[in-house]
Amino acid sequence: MASSEGAKLWGGRFVGRTDPIMERFNSSIACDERMWAADIKGSKAYAKALEKAGLLTKTEMDQILNGMDKIAEEWTNGTFEIKEGDEDVHTAHERRLKELIGEAGGKLHTGRSRNDQVVTDMRIWLQDEISVLMGHLQQLIKTMVERAAAEIHILFPGYTHMQRAQPIRWSHWILSHAAALTRDAERLDEIKKRTNILPLGSGAIAGNPFKIDRDFLRKELQFDAISLNSMDATSGRDFVAEIMFWCSLCMIHLSKISEDLIIYSTAEFGFVSLSDAYSTGSSLMPQKKNADSLELIRGKTGSVFGRFSGFLMTLKGLPSTYNKDLQEDKEAMFESIDTVTAVLQVASGVISTLKVHEDAMKKALSPNMLATDLAYYLVRKKMPFREAHSASGRAVHLAEKKGIEMDQLTLDDFKTISPLFESDVSKIWNYTNSVEQYAAAGGTARSSVTSQIEQLRAWLKKRQSI
Amino acid sequence: MASSEGAKLWGGRFVGRTDPIMERFNSSIACDERMWAADIKGSKAYAKALEKAGLLTKTEMDQILNGMDKIAEEWTNGTFEIKEGDEDVHTAHERRLKELIGEAGGKLHTGRSRNDQVVTDMRIWLQDEISVLMGHLQQLIKTMVERAAAEIHILFPGYTHMQRAQPIRWSHWILSHAAALTRDAERLDEIKKRTNILPLGSGAIAGNPFKIDRDFLRKELQFDAISLNSMDATSGRDFVAEIMFWCSLCMIHLSKISEDLIIYSTAEFGFVSLSDAYSTGSSLMPQKKNADSLELIRGKTGSVFGRFSGFLMTLKGLPSTYNKDLQEDKEAMFESIDTVTAVLQVASGVISTLKVHEDAMKKALSPNMLATDLAYYLVRKKMPFREAHSASGRAVHLAEKKGIEMDQLTLDDFKTISPLFESDVSKIWNYTNSVEQYAAAGGTARSSVTSQIEQLRAWLKKRQSI
Amino acid sequence: MASSEGAKLWGGRFVGRTDPIMERFNSSIACDERMWAADIKGSKAYAKALEKAGLLTKTEMDQILNGMDKIAEEWTNGTFEIKEGDEDVHTAHERRLKELIGEAGGKLHTGRSRNDQVVTDMRIWLQDEISVLMGHLQQLIKTMVERAAAEIHILFPGYTHMQRAQPIRWSHWILSHAAALTRDAERLDEIKKRTNILPLGSGAIAGNPFKIDRDFLRKELQFDAISLNSMDATSGRDFVAEIMFWCSLCMIHLSKISEDLIIYSTAEFGFVSLSDAYSTGSSLMPQKKNADSLELIRGKTGSVFGRFSGFLMTLKGLPSTYNKDLQEDKEAMFESIDTVTAVLQVASGVISTLKVHEDAMKKALSPNMLATDLAYYLVRKKMPFREAHSASGRAVHLAEKKGIEMDQLTLDDFKTISPLFESDVSKIWNYTNSVEQYAAAGGTARSSVTSQIEQLRAWLKKRQSI
Amino acid sequence: MASSEGAKLWGGRFVGRTDPIMERFNSSIACDERMWAADIKGSKAYAKALEKAGLLTKTEMDQILNGMDKIAEEWTNGTFEIKEGDEDVHTAHERRLKELIGEAGGKLHTGRSRNDQVVTDMRIWLQDEISVLMGHLQQLIKTMVERAAAEIHILFPGYTHMQRAQPIRWSHWILSHAAALTRDAERLDEIKKRTNILPLGSGAIAGNPFKIDRDFLRKELQFDAISLNSMDATSGRDFVAEIMFWCSLCMIHLSKISEDLIIYSTAEFGFVSLSDAYSTGSSLMPQKKNADSLELIRGKTGSVFGRFSGFLMTLKGLPSTYNKDLQEDKEAMFESIDTVTAVLQVASGVISTLKVHEDAMKKALSPNMLATDLAYYLVRKKMPFREAHSASGRAVHLAEKKGIEMDQLTLDDFKTISPLFESDVSKIWNYTNSVEQYAAAGGTARSSVTSQIEQLRAWLKKRQSI
Repeated sequence: MASSEGAKLWGGRFVGRTDPIMERFNSSIACDERMWAADIKGSKAYAKALEKAGLLTKTEMDQILNGMDKIAEEWTNGTFEIKEGDEDVHTAHERRLKELIGEAGGKLHTGRSRNDQVVTDMRIWLQDEISVLMGHLQQLIKTMVERAAAEIHILFPGYTHMQRAQPIRWSHWILSHAAALTRDAERLDEIKKRTNILPLGSGAIAGNPFKIDRDFLRKELQFDAISLNSMDATSGRDFVAEIMFWCSLCMIHLSKISEDLIIYSTAEFGFVSLSDAYSTGSSLMPQKKNADSLELIRGKTGSVFGRFSGFLMTLKGLPSTYNKDLQEDKEAMFESIDTVTAVLQVASGVISTLKVHEDAMKKALSPNMLATDLAYYLVRKKMPFREAHSASGRAVHLAEKKGIEMDQLTLDDFKTISPLFESDVSKIWNYTNSVEQYAAAGGTARSSVTSQIEQLRAWLKKRQSI
Repeated sequence: MASSEGAKLWGGRFVGRTDPIMERFNSSIACDERMWAADIKGSKAYAKALEKAGLLTKTEMDQILNGMDKIAEEWTNGTFEIKEGDEDVHTAHERRLKELIGEAGGKLHTGRSRNDQVVTDMRIWLQDEISVLMGHLQQLIKTMVERAAAEIHILFPGYTHMQRAQPIRWSHWILSHAAALTRDAERLDEIKKRTNILPLGSGAIAGNPFKIDRDFLRKELQFDAISLNSMDATSGRDFVAEIMFWCSLCMIHLSKISEDLIIYSTAEFGFVSLSDAYSTGSSLMPQKKNADSLELIRGKTGSVFGRFSGFLMTLKGLPSTYNKDLQEDKEAMFESIDTVTAVLQVASGVISTLKVHEDAMKKALSPNMLATDLAYYLVRKKMPFREAHSASGRAVHLAEKKGIEMDQLTLDDFKTISPLFESDVSKIWNYTNSVEQYAAAGGTARSSVTSQIEQLRAWLKKRQSI
Repeated sequence: MASSEGAKLWGGRFVGRTDPIMERFNSSIACDERMWAADIKGSKAYAKALEKAGLLTKTEMDQILNGMDKIAEEWTNGTFEIKEGDEDVHTAHERRLKELIGEAGGKLHTGRSRNDQVVTDMRIWLQDEISVLMGHLQQLIKTMVERAAAEIHILFPGYTHMQRAQPIRWSHWILSHAAALTRDAERLDEIKKRTNILPLGSGAIAGNPFKIDRDFLRKELQFDAISLNSMDATSGRDFVAEIMFWCSLCMIHLSKISEDLIIYSTAEFGFVSLSDAYSTGSSLMPQKKNADSLELIRGKTGSVFGRFSGFLMTLKGLPSTYNKDLQEDKEAMFESIDTVTAVLQVASGVISTLKVHEDAMKKALSPNMLATDLAYYLVRKKMPFREAHSASGRAVHLAEKKGIEMDQLTLDDFKTISPLFESDVSKIWNYTNSVEQYAAAGGTARSSVTSQIEQLRAWLKKRQSI
Repeated sequence: MASSEGAKLWGGRFVGRTDPIMERFNSSIACDERMWAADIKGSKAYAKALEKAGLLTKTEMDQILNGMDKIAEEWTNGTFEIKEGDEDVHTAHERRLKELIGEAGGKLHTGRSRNDQVVTDMRIWLQDEISVLMGHLQQLIKTMVERAAAEIHILFPGYTHMQRAQPIRWSHWILSHAAALTRDAERLDEIKKRTNILPLGSGAIAGNPFKIDRDFLRKELQFDAISLNSMDATSGRDFVAEIMFWCSLCMIHLSKISEDLIIYSTAEFGFVSLSDAYSTGSSLMPQKKNADSLELIRGKTGSVFGRFSGFLMTLKGLPSTYNKDLQEDKEAMFESIDTVTAVLQVASGVISTLKVHEDAMKKALSPNMLATDLAYYLVRKKMPFREAHSASGRAVHLAEKKGIEMDQLTLDDFKTISPLFESDVSKIWNYTNSVEQYAAAGGTARSSVTSQIEQLRAWLKKRQSI
């Protein structure tokens, strides 16, 4: 005997025709039913193309189109029933179609494979989701820009390495995050472009053998182009990897905003308070008000990245064409997008309802944050910067040694450091003057911040008019 | 005004007391309800400890215990209702307890926080799951060992770099995978030990202020030890990271088995056939029988890793103690364990029902796989190995040049390579003789493979008797 | 005393002003010296802008420009010395500049910070590297396209799930990988666009206080645009994350080619042989020839992903602006790009020198791979596809039962399955006819593959003319 | 012709016998030379075993042992030369051995393969590194424990969600991190145990054919056990994955300490100051003192994780036995261990030299942090906790409404909330009393913290005596 039958010899946990655990393991319908609308849309277009290619009569096509509409209705009404053996949404639809219209239903899959069908569905689905994401993203940017415009007068400490660095405008901080999000919008445009490439008509691997008009399919489904190569089309999942990277990077941007705001809302910083809608209390400590919304955003950044990195690992080392490993693509993509969709809205809510404590911000500005200005004072009196930096450093230490703030140093004190200091050194200790120096493009001067706001408003306007 | 109220000025998507998206975002009950039994178990033990500490009367304690039993009954019967505002399973239980027993229910949370409660629940839950995982893992190892014992006579090519290397026993291949899985079992033992450390009685951060007897709690809940430090206890999630790493590495082992078997079940190799129960067909190509089960295992290896890596990212850079970011721990842990639990069973099923094509295996053995044996022939005649390796290489090339297999080379051919070759060189070309050389521990000789089987059987027996 | 001094009380491993381990830990010059040319380029442009802003005299500027040229010369000649205290390439250059030109060197850093300097250097450096990557990528695509054109006549089995699926052209397989790589090229274009945004003039955080002309800097350094916001400019590392994602996805594409070719070069498949230049032997087994080049590509896919995922974790949860954590960006980026640069060249070498075993490919085509064609035969006779699929499946099983290939079934055999079968069924068993069916766009028919080649040639031509 | 020769037809970048890029790509000596001592140790043991098995004469063995000692000397003196063609440290050593002792050198590799050799070297190397890591880890824990003992009197705010939660001892905070590190030590013990399994004698795949005494090898090399199965032994890299996970989790613990201390060292918190040895200044802002050491630790947490996750991806989906992909194991392992080795020392330095600002810590304690105590006051007067929690919450809001701290509320104010309040409520507002409540095991009371210190000291003592 050329083969040996295992079951009898070593006894496994299971002997029989089917293994219920395997069946659950293999089935994807719990996850992919979510694409029902895309699947129906794709099948209707395919039915029309089959009719055009002479593989369906007009009558058969109409039966199929009506049947698919009926199925859509059932989904909408919540009456569509998933039956045993409906491995995925595609088989469920074909099964139901045959129940509804009989034999003609068996013609719909002519020349099509689940390999080109599923990836078409995913692309249709994703196009819609990208629009939703873009809407929420632009809303968030808009909220930030308008808040920045309204609060341009507020100054507070700019930090590097979490240490007070230089006074900046609060709006400058807001816009730094908005600027990062505009890159997310640009990247999303690019992904959209690559998502709108139609794989339908690629069959299982070799292509479509019935002279199906793929450009007709493309127009029917409003795609921008058709895929170049059937093998690549059915197994390429770049668009999934790309959207998941997009989600991860966007979340990283939001984790940065969150980290800042969590710190700014501590008792010690006290710069902002979250609206009650975005905070929660403690089951034990009555005084607590926690920035749960922001912590969840920060925490979910990890989870979204996890979905993404997991999918990349799934792809790594896979051979060509469709392998069942790719079934992991959908849940990962769905969950990532769901999370980011919620997070963008929560972030908008947090930003728009945040209370800003202007007084606390002002109080946190300290004279030693103007040490760079003191160095610049000397630079303007022609001292080379590196020397001026060192002179200013000596002033910092002198003040520390005396246990006073730098603005309490006398002119005599300063003279011990450099003869270039004159009575006008006292004008340094003004935070508004300080920020107004940074008038180069991108800086924190009012004019520069205003210009940033205008550029972002123009950017938003242009996008929304598209 | 020291603060500015955002909502009116810049208009967010949301103005009001609550944001439904935030509420859904914040709620964890859809996920953590799964720990209802653990939560009830923990609460019952805590009620007893409160009574012991004089914070509950005996009557109150009994009310609480009965109430919790009633809730357990409702879960079992599927009648437990989750109501609006039940943010998590803990608040749902406390809410329901008060409905059932009134005011005494409000005493259960005395000195306890959700911070120590949730991590206690997770550890109780995980202990049970570890037992389940261990059962499936040992079953899989057992299946492999018994199959190896039954098929010890079958030889086939051992591959390195996917190139035919040396003849080995099929059982040797099986046992190589079983050996890796025994390390998973050992690691799981260690994680179990660290999971069985009780955090209950740590409060929110500072500890428990009511002289609760934590060792009593430990005994009630059958833990091995109590946690050392309340801050570490409430926020430490090493045990989650560890079990998720465990899942990832175990999956990587299973992805290796899968990769081998997928390749061995190609038409070109033809060494094994999967049972129909673990294969599926094609929607387009009638002749196809695909090893979907194995591809899913390989693909899900990525997904399980993703959950794990995502959680590590969530942990990275978090400050001390409980932060809401940690809420991401549960879904990640649940899904990883669910996947591995299913995969271990599917893998057992695949292995136990696999058909082995002994003839195809034998046919795949080729004389050039004995080139190392030819070198060893010369080594035994005192030629240094490096020289013998080179001489054997020349024989390989001679055969290639002549377009024949190595065993077709004549003695004269061999003599042109080295005068050490004698007529007994013809005895080299015997695959059974070849494998029988490898009689050192761990090798592929029958005696050595048998010893491996015996060691693994003893290992299994010892574990099962515990 | 408001503070307590640790060292004396509890004794650490280290007491003193400096810790040599910390110094090594903190220093980045071993890694960032690689950007010396970019750093010099950026500094020269900045010197010119300072002169334009009146902060340097013409003479001082010339001194600086000459000094920087001298430093460049030293690097080129290998005589530039890194001294103790040269923490990074920026401080090394400033130190050397002062040695060379004296006091004026101390003016170069006026209004500049290492925060805007380093990210400018990275962007200059990356622009060049992107060009190099693009060159190698296009060369690889070109090699694939030309090989596809030259070998369009070769047929071999197309696999899905690693099981023989349908006959395809070898060129169709090659082009499927080339198609994926064109998306990498498009993505690289987009990243280039976003890399060419100039941060210089952003200072440490607040901007530049000396009315520096940032658009002048942009023109000097040939960037496309200047950054919008100084805080975002100095700490945004999207471009690093993007290029590392790019590297990861490109490697995943190459891991797919590698996996295919590793399998195709097994003794069992025997479709291809790697050139000796890309294979290595075994230290033990004289007959071995291993596809090490491809295994390294596949293995390094993990390592490149690791660099990327590690950097995303570094970014996650970071607060705004520059934090030292960002120092991890450079080594990760450098190593990823170095690896992909080498891999693209190795892949070109492998593809261009690969031997294809046409006979083995032909021999691997088996009649049951035409089962779909058999179903299509019935479809063309008006049987609904689903029914035809099932009929063909019965033919597959009939042949299996009889122990013969499908093309050995008689017309009588076929008639038992469906009366629609007629004598022309024998025409099915022709692999060339089979592939020629797939004439829809993207399919494996000669016309369709030729069209793919033409599209890719046009794509390459257009890019190379830019 | 059955094969087609690519080079001429489509022209690759490279035509010839060798490709210099491939050679560099393939070579591992730049990385693995680091294991020279382990390789020599392993080879010496193997030579003795060969002699014992009759494959070497006593004289040959002595020649080899002397030759290997000479090579070791060359490495130590820095005179060992790597020559062209030395692909890895193993071939370099064999080449040099033959130069030194002639023909007998060619016998050393008898029955050995680089497959069992390299993994033996890695395990020898890792054993030493684990001891080094353990030393640094225990030193760090010791520093923390002794600092905790010395500063047990200092109180400061405990935070959850970064909001002031309850007063705790500073030592309690220190110990929470020390506790996490003890788990790292335990895990490292376990990994050490699994690293000390000897693979030598496994050959390339099938085992050792010369009755080599593997137990003799084990004793010579001081391993605990020999590997079970030669295929698993040569390709199993669990120990690498494990140590890299260990590094990642240990870094995550250190990132948590870092995050806390970075925040505690802000001007706003002002709880601690880092020693100058662990801080750096700004190239632009003279007043800055940044916690670079801690930011690097936090940032490198990502990089170490990256190495780990990359290696897991490399492993995923690999087939059995040695594949060249595994060559990625060494650099990843070396760099992870180097980083953690440095980080543990830097962390010890930071912790031991940190200045603690006791006054600032005390000042940050605020009466509302005692809201839980207020609730407990009512609990002690028999109010159910949930009701008491709510009553205390009303007191919090009353104080907020009045714009005063809670301890400024009058008894009348309290009476409006609950009649249970009596004059003794004023005793609540004492932070020392508050912490002393938490006397249950693991809590923040002096007795409980002291007990934690004692447990950790005993733990350290026990380990150091081993």
